[in-house]
Amino acid sequence: MSDRIFNFSPGPAVLPEEVLAEAREDLWNLAGSGIGVMEHSHRGPAFDRVRQEAEADCRALAGIGDDFAVLFLQGGASTQFFMLPANFLGERATADYLVTGSWSEKAVKEAKRYGRVHVAASSEDRQYAYIPAADAIRCSERPAYVHFTSNNTIFGTQWPSEPPLPEGAWLACDASSDVFSRPLAMEKYGVLYAGAQKNLGPSGVTLVLIRRALLESAVRDLPTMLRYAVHAENDSCYNTPPTFGIYVMGRVFKWIGRQGGLAELARRNEEKAALVYDALAAGGGFYACTAEAGSRSLMNVTFRTPSPELDARFVKEAQAQGLDGLKGHRSVGGMRASLYNAFPRAGCEALAQFLKDFAAKNG
Amino acid sequence: MSDRIFNFSPGPAVLPEEVLAEAREDLWNLAGSGIGVMEHSHRGPAFDRVRQEAEADCRALAGIGDDFAVLFLQGGASTQFFMLPANFLGERATADYLVTGSWSEKAVKEAKRYGRVHVAASSEDRQYAYIPAADAIRCSERPAYVHFTSNNTIFGTQWPSEPPLPEGAWLACDASSDVFSRPLAMEKYGVLYAGAQKNLGPSGVTLVLIRRALLESAVRDLPTMLRYAVHAENDSCYNTPPTFGIYVMGRVFKWIGRQGGLAELARRNEEKAALVYDALAAGGGFYACTAEAGSRSLMNVTFRTPSPELDARFVKEAQAQGLDGLKGHRSVGGMRASLYNAFPRAGCEALAQFLKDFAAKNG
Repeated sequence: MSDRIFNFSPGPAVLPEEVLAEAREDLWNLAGSGIGVMEHSHRGPAFDRVRQEAEADCRALAGIGDDFAVLFLQGGASTQFFMLPANFLGERATADYLVTGSWSEKAVKEAKRYGRVHVAASSEDRQYAYIPAADAIRCSERPAYVHFTSNNTIFGTQWPSEPPLPEGAWLACDASSDVFSRPLAMEKYGVLYAGAQKNLGPSGVTLVLIRRALLESAVRDLPTMLRYAVHAENDSCYNTPPTFGIYVMGRVFKWIGRQGGLAELARRNEEKAALVYDALAAGGGFYACTAEAGSRSLMNVTFRTPSPELDARFVKEAQAQGLDGLKGHRSVGGMRASLYNAFPRAGCEALAQFLKDFAAKNG
Repeated sequence: MSDRIFNFSPGPAVLPEEVLAEAREDLWNLAGSGIGVMEHSHRGPAFDRVRQEAEADCRALAGIGDDFAVLFLQGGASTQFFMLPANFLGERATADYLVTGSWSEKAVKEAKRYGRVHVAASSEDRQYAYIPAADAIRCSERPAYVHFTSNNTIFGTQWPSEPPLPEGAWLACDASSDVFSRPLAMEKYGVLYAGAQKNLGPSGVTLVLIRRALLESAVRDLPTMLRYAVHAENDSCYNTPPTFGIYVMGRVFKWIGRQGGLAELARRNEEKAALVYDALAAGGGFYACTAEAGSRSLMNVTFRTPSPELDARFVKEAQAQGLDGLKGHRSVGGMRASLYNAFPRAGCEALAQFLKDFAAKNG
């Protein structure tokens, strides 16, 4: 029996145990080199192979060719919030933002430093409990890009698929919390970025998929480290990249491949989330989902019991049974079960059972 | 016998084996939590303890109190090259830079975007083979700060101690390649920054020690992620920090403490470097150091044999004997032995022996 418990953390989050086992070996001695993976020069052949494989496996999963650059950067989505408009939003140009939660708000705030921001849709009117319908989106005439947050960890909502786009525009996406949890329509994207720490690896490495055609269209002269083109020209090695993070992400890509790729992960993620949502519904009104039907996330299931006191008891008793990290974000309250790619189905079954037992005992 | 070899990599570089052994355990299950260190929320108690201990141990080693903030950032020294002047160099102000190699040059280049740069000393005239003497430094009237690169990995030079400072000025230092290899006169510093990947941990985390009094004196309104004050107010958790990197750095701090602290490390580093420099000198002219006497680094020993062909043979034969990573930087050629804190004395003894044997065979 494993000494590990079910980790519902919203991020950094659970990683595949197979990957952890590999990392434990390679930390000491990578591929028989006599040197651990953290200790290899980023310019040497051992790490070069790690990086190249990670890139190739990423391309295979995303289904992208050389028209995209695959970058491994630092600073998380929070850095992308300003780096994206710094590169692509001219002072007199307009970027459209679809605002579905706190992370979208932060992205808007940083973009406003660089140019005009048009909020093309927002679900703030109902506390971000839903994803705007396609016909509620009002894009501007010629947006520099259309930005959206594909999954909202705090509010437990997720775009069912990519939002519609005006002719000639491209999508920019903060996909930190659902990247590679399902297939992506990459032809619509100009830039997709994701902090690794939910679906892809440890914190400290940011995956950026960027259309190469955009690289030369940066609208301002920026510090070297803020130019996507510099990182693309140097295969993410302009400066020393986060080598261990890239290594783990690469191993997670291989793990996803072994599971059957993004379509198979999507199927499993739907099943996993259904186990939890069905158990919530079976509570006969004891539980309330905080996200509206049709907008609910497969990654973060947010819900409440009838009272804050019962919420607190729920979290405490679940914790005692080895179900960790279920406390909701302070701005929403209640509970949040994060069910990223690496979260095991057995954990969803255990939570479903706990949901039933807790409702029966306290309902 | 260990399956590990002697790793002279300039960075990412060798880490203490005790730390690797701990990391292998904690990667699976941190402190009996049932969750690995990479998988803990950065807002949970387990990681909070990791971060707090890392900060406290860092303070103890550096001998700093609460007048300094200890930050764990991302983006390496290359990000600090522009973040420092972005925060502290006004458009009409002047910062003084002491230029002793490629990294200093890059720092100057980024600073020029923000204000005036005065090169107060440079060793470019002799290919950066030396550190300017104190009386060769010509500071400006009232510099915003005086920036120096304490150790130059490429050219194998190191400041013997902090450069002299004009009255009222403060030092800014890129200490990436010798941080915590010896005691620091922290009272002279306003900002000391260091990518972790040479003396402190894996790549992907940057240690920044910054005087709190400076935090409110930032000269421009910057994107949130570029403000030191934001990171200081949020204990490096404004956004998700590189949790595993901080964990490893914290374990390295404890390891340094167990060795006896910075004064003891300085003593050992001097002994280790002397083993190699003495063996080079004993070659009776077969080897030439590329750095001038009096300026030579204890961290990176750079040298040549009489010919590029012999250099290549040296690297190849050393590699075959388990002495890895000795090839010099392409801009200098020859060899470079990096002897950071965690590099073992036994490796220096092995290299010294190899130096003698190789000279005898080829001299």
